[in-house]
Amino acid sequence: MRPGLMALEEALAQLLSRVEALVLDPQAVPTLAAQGRVLAADILAGLNVPGHDNSSMDGYAVRVADVLALADGVPMRVSQRIAAGHAGAALEPGTAARIFTGAPVPQGADAVVMQEDVQAQTDSAGLTNITFKTAPAVGQWIRRLGEDVTLGNTVLRAGDRLGPAELGLAASLGCADLWVHRRVKVALFSTGDELVMPGALPPEQMPPGAIYNSNRYFLKALLERLGCEVSDLGIVPDQRSATLAALENAAQTHDLILTSGGVSVGEEDHIKPAVQQLGALDLWQIGMKPGKPFAYGWVGNGVGGRCHFVGLPGNPVSSYVTFLLLVVPMLRRLQGMRNQLDWAALGQTAVAHFDWPKGDKRREFLRVRRNASGGLDLFPNQSSGVLTSMVWADGLLDNPPGQSIVMGDTVRYLPFSALLDD
Amino acid sequence: MRPGLMALEEALAQLLSRVEALVLDPQAVPTLAAQGRVLAADILAGLNVPGHDNSSMDGYAVRVADVLALADGVPMRVSQRIAAGHAGAALEPGTAARIFTGAPVPQGADAVVMQEDVQAQTDSAGLTNITFKTAPAVGQWIRRLGEDVTLGNTVLRAGDRLGPAELGLAASLGCADLWVHRRVKVALFSTGDELVMPGALPPEQMPPGAIYNSNRYFLKALLERLGCEVSDLGIVPDQRSATLAALENAAQTHDLILTSGGVSVGEEDHIKPAVQQLGALDLWQIGMKPGKPFAYGWVGNGVGGRCHFVGLPGNPVSSYVTFLLLVVPMLRRLQGMRNQLDWAALGQTAVAHFDWPKGDKRREFLRVRRNASGGLDLFPNQSSGVLTSMVWADGLLDNPPGQSIVMGDTVRYLPFSALLDD
Repeated sequence: MRPGLMALEEALAQLLSRVEALVLDPQAVPTLAAQGRVLAADILAGLNVPGHDNSSMDGYAVRVADVLALADGVPMRVSQRIAAGHAGAALEPGTAARIFTGAPVPQGADAVVMQEDVQAQTDSAGLTNITFKTAPAVGQWIRRLGEDVTLGNTVLRAGDRLGPAELGLAASLGCADLWVHRRVKVALFSTGDELVMPGALPPEQMPPGAIYNSNRYFLKALLERLGCEVSDLGIVPDQRSATLAALENAAQTHDLILTSGGVSVGEEDHIKPAVQQLGALDLWQIGMKPGKPFAYGWVGNGVGGRCHFVGLPGNPVSSYVTFLLLVVPMLRRLQGMRNQLDWAALGQTAVAHFDWPKGDKRREFLRVRRNASGGLDLFPNQSSGVLTSMVWADGLLDNPPGQSIVMGDTVRYLPFSALLDD
Repeated sequence: MRPGLMALEEALAQLLSRVEALVLDPQAVPTLAAQGRVLAADILAGLNVPGHDNSSMDGYAVRVADVLALADGVPMRVSQRIAAGHAGAALEPGTAARIFTGAPVPQGADAVVMQEDVQAQTDSAGLTNITFKTAPAVGQWIRRLGEDVTLGNTVLRAGDRLGPAELGLAASLGCADLWVHRRVKVALFSTGDELVMPGALPPEQMPPGAIYNSNRYFLKALLERLGCEVSDLGIVPDQRSATLAALENAAQTHDLILTSGGVSVGEEDHIKPAVQQLGALDLWQIGMKPGKPFAYGWVGNGVGGRCHFVGLPGNPVSSYVTFLLLVVPMLRRLQGMRNQLDWAALGQTAVAHFDWPKGDKRREFLRVRRNASGGLDLFPNQSSGVLTSMVWADGLLDNPPGQSIVMGDTVRYLPFSALLDD
């Protein structure tokens, strides 16, 4: 670590120590509309799944002893028929019940025989007899009451994020609505006179030094993907008064103000004194590349509360990578998620299929992609100025300071999908 | 492969051979609202990024030869100041220009020196002089015009799905709107008399044999996550006429009808004859567990066109897993995505931290989770009846037919995040 630089782990620990789960007024939302929300209360099973011993196959419910008692080739009469959703009668001794997947196993039966494993014959009177190709085992093709979910057990916990599987599980327990936290509200803006909104000017009319604002586009998309409610406040001009006003207003109705740009040690930034005036601000120089300048602070909300403030670096890739490695874990804590994102533990070992002759003095997060043979390829242009590398890559190679890489070396790989997963 | 069972790869190939990218009337949508959409046209760079040689640091722009010509300890005058978004004048020979990250490098300068690498002193007249701690190299801390994106180059391609990075890249090129395919329209319904909608009855009033419908919950969430427009048609009763009417109506306004349940070889299913009557249907028995029955077909839309039909198994886990392995690749093709989901290639090798003494006759997809030491743990209950295993797991272990597993064995692991990633 170079003097004056903060280790990334230290920055993450510092950040998390300043953030507690927000008190996010829980609300009931329909299970069908709850994707991405975070549970505010445990869900206890209000029933057994299955609710009864039932067949896991289309076939015949039998008492195994009755089948074993049959002489070879002698058929067994089918005495009833039980469809899914219908309860049958107790099994008449010495007979079989036609049964379908999911239907309750009748009292007295102790196995289901798959229909493929019998020969069925229907006589002129419409009565069906079956002969067995193999001997059944007790319990076969029967799902037991409570086998999957037991009445009263906790099946989902407060702090779980609701993805497709969680929603399906909750529905299978009869939950039409779920008690979830409200969404975290994030105000997003960018600062910088050089920024032009796409659409405001065509490329050929861009003044010298002007660049299109891209950060708000990917930050908004990332925040939405993480289940936040995003207010896009646009570009705040490089003026102290405008910056103060934007921060003050945003703090009143948001949990987090997220900006990009304006947090480096350059003199042209109005964001730092503005946050300091309205609350407090720490500027960190993190030992990582891309991404070095990072600001954490807060802005008073006018009624004694605090709105978190995070300032990301202005370069798109720096901004994106610091968002993934620092803001995602912070957001999960704000959202009340039970499992923090421990991306250090998500790292996988992989083999570099490239040379990187000269590691940077800072810990690098190189944009890489898994190739067909399972190794990692490197995006040739590791510039932090544009997102081509982030589009191409499927993950980051976490390279220690000063470390050179030779083809065949084992390296640490963080897939984007794991960083953004729940 | 058991006789009569179709290999999963064969099923996937068959399915994809019957599906072409839909003609999905392209439409322009705002870049800020385009997350998850699929590009309908290539995006060519309308400008160079950077648009000019610019500084990648806060510091001083210099001509290297001028610095090298200075005697030791002799300072250099700072002759101008160039902020981001502002073009400077040509560099006065023998002087330095104060420059900030992103600002254009002035004509005549060939390097930027980081501010940390100089000593700056301002005299009583307000003039700043700097002395250099190290000799700069030509080109250092300068991003070159067009280095990241070159005017006229293709930066995103028709068929790319738009995630945060793609949206950011498009914005950085000035694209305020993007030409995308319309969303694929999917009609979702479940069949089965045993199904009760959550909320319709409390658990204690559920009749024997009744189960809550969970499949529509996770299927809707999965479809939405994949960018589809979902019509939820609810539960269709186990009656021929109701099934026919539901299919006919749905086919008129959707690209795909997706059902779960009613595709096994059981006799109680009305979905099969209904689809056959309105179009065509193939019933497959796929050699996989969970998941075996799978139906692909089509329903006429009344004006000479066809709406795809897919019938998933009714068991929740079977339904979920066949959705991931078969429907996701199919949907990507329908959506016009350029890259098909080749999940066979996504498989990673991993080490089993459990025993699985008896492999099934069918190829199994066991629900597993990576543990802290990088190995795979197995969810103890591999029942396909309820989604607890899918909630707990973070991926599938792809186990060949009849294969037993001993702790320490190398196995094939498919992370869910990779299956659902773009």
